[in-house]
Amino acid sequence: MDWQGEIAAARSRIRGHARVTPVARLTLGGHDIEVKLEQMQLTGSFKARGAFNTLLSVDVPAAGVVAASGGNHGAAVGFAAAALGHPAHIFVPEVAGPAKIAVIERSGATCHVVPGLYADALEAARAHEAETGAMQVHAYDAVPTVAGQGTCFAEWDAQGLEADTVLVAVGGGGLIAGALAHWAGRRKVVAVEPRLSRALHAALEAGEPVDVPVSGVGANALGAKRIGSIAFELARGMEAVVVEDAAILEAQRVLWQEARQLVEPAGACALAGLLSGAYRPAPGERVAVLVCGANPAPDPLG
Amino acid sequence: MDWQGEIAAARSRIRGHARVTPVARLTLGGHDIEVKLEQMQLTGSFKARGAFNTLLSVDVPAAGVVAASGGNHGAAVGFAAAALGHPAHIFVPEVAGPAKIAVIERSGATCHVVPGLYADALEAARAHEAETGAMQVHAYDAVPTVAGQGTCFAEWDAQGLEADTVLVAVGGGGLIAGALAHWAGRRKVVAVEPRLSRALHAALEAGEPVDVPVSGVGANALGAKRIGSIAFELARGMEAVVVEDAAILEAQRVLWQEARQLVEPAGACALAGLLSGAYRPAPGERVAVLVCGANPAPDPLG
Repeated sequence: MDWQGEIAAARSRIRGHARVTPVARLTLGGHDIEVKLEQMQLTGSFKARGAFNTLLSVDVPAAGVVAASGGNHGAAVGFAAAALGHPAHIFVPEVAGPAKIAVIERSGATCHVVPGLYADALEAARAHEAETGAMQVHAYDAVPTVAGQGTCFAEWDAQGLEADTVLVAVGGGGLIAGALAHWAGRRKVVAVEPRLSRALHAALEAGEPVDVPVSGVGANALGAKRIGSIAFELARGMEAVVVEDAAILEAQRVLWQEARQLVEPAGACALAGLLSGAYRPAPGERVAVLVCGANPAPDPLG
Repeated sequence: MDWQGEIAAARSRIRGHARVTPVARLTLGGHDIEVKLEQMQLTGSFKARGAFNTLLSVDVPAAGVVAASGGNHGAAVGFAAAALGHPAHIFVPEVAGPAKIAVIERSGATCHVVPGLYADALEAARAHEAETGAMQVHAYDAVPTVAGQGTCFAEWDAQGLEADTVLVAVGGGGLIAGALAHWAGRRKVVAVEPRLSRALHAALEAGEPVDVPVSGVGANALGAKRIGSIAFELARGMEAVVVEDAAILEAQRVLWQEARQLVEPAGACALAGLLSGAYRPAPGERVAVLVCGANPAPDPLG
């Protein structure tokens, strides 16, 4: 796969659609780091990059797009579709909760709240796809999605990133795949997973993607049952750490108290990898952290 | 007054103490604007700039510093004093509420919660000053304070600000004075005041600083009874607009929903000037907005 070419094409495709998110140099929890505030992306997470790149890469059918999502992916697909003039139907499990559901409702998509869990929403989304011919948009394991997320890191380079090492949170692997695809060894990428949603670690241990149970404070954003195959191939041999839920909540608190950035737990997961000591930089190693999502529950202004 | 010299000196003085805050180009409420996220400053408001510049400009007495404040000024003075190794006593009126009081308590200062209103806290602070010889730090009407706040705008220029016009919220006038002192007509500065805390407007109408009643959603940050004399002299003839509380709350909502920046109402006041139509840019006029404070109540993680 020519990832450099895919990401460069994605970058020009989504220009003017997705937002260029700001970067800053901050001292957080006593660590001097570079951060990229990707939670300021449209719809509150990096997912808008992959969604725009996907919808701009293909001929979207007249029936539009459909996605099943408990949150950030659904909001991003709904928003991108609405912005580009396509119908979108997002099927949300009731357990996603009112804050995430409100973000999807504001995206401009038709939001269907499905009683039950994610599997129920997925079943309803597949039924809609079969009935209407709408295009199903995968949350992480697709080339246009990974290339779209990769634009975040290409953009960061262009903004003057200096770090040797970049910490990135992992759920299904779309974001970390984008980082690995973009840097291809030119910077060190460290994966940070919650101990309670460790699809990448389980795959690295097993030598192949395997199902894991998912729970914990970041589960509605990071709780993929199985790492994507694209991410798994790119991630072989990479450094990956796990963090406890308490460390994620502490990193969320530090981002708010020390920099007034209110994020959801998953959005603070990468920072937790550093603050908790799960990842310990060598002396002189320059570290950067991607802040990736800010659709917390409850909504502070909801 | 050689404001350019004062601000340049302040900038080198506070380097490494105050934070360089990020800037971004955003579409908010349908307006393409440049923003500076000064609410990410240490202690959650621009006040840290003036506090550091003040404490680094003088010989602080052994008794340290004292301030009376319902919020951001007290947190900034307390933090700067603690960072520089000086004792600090901040007198907070009980009506400031638990969120602001918690920010001051975390600043590292000794926080005295005084029953009653701001006047009671001021009286207690003055008694402390008389007893101990501690240095009283004024919130806005002092040259080192104005020069410190001015560094925010010099920094923004260095970050590539392109706007013709910059909207800035006004309380006692320290921040707007810093903007006017720095730009000195090189960019247009527009003052935005809440209708319920309109000390600058009242002074511009009366031809001199006069007392006004203060209330409303931004009053604990912008509710100065009288504009500072430095600000008044710099502000003669400037363009100033007023906004309703509802417009401030709407701008606060837009910053959160469209850019995931959670601010206090006062921090969204300048944006409200644009979104409400109180200030209407000419065709092609490039506009920037300073986001200036993020110590909301209730604390979303408190």
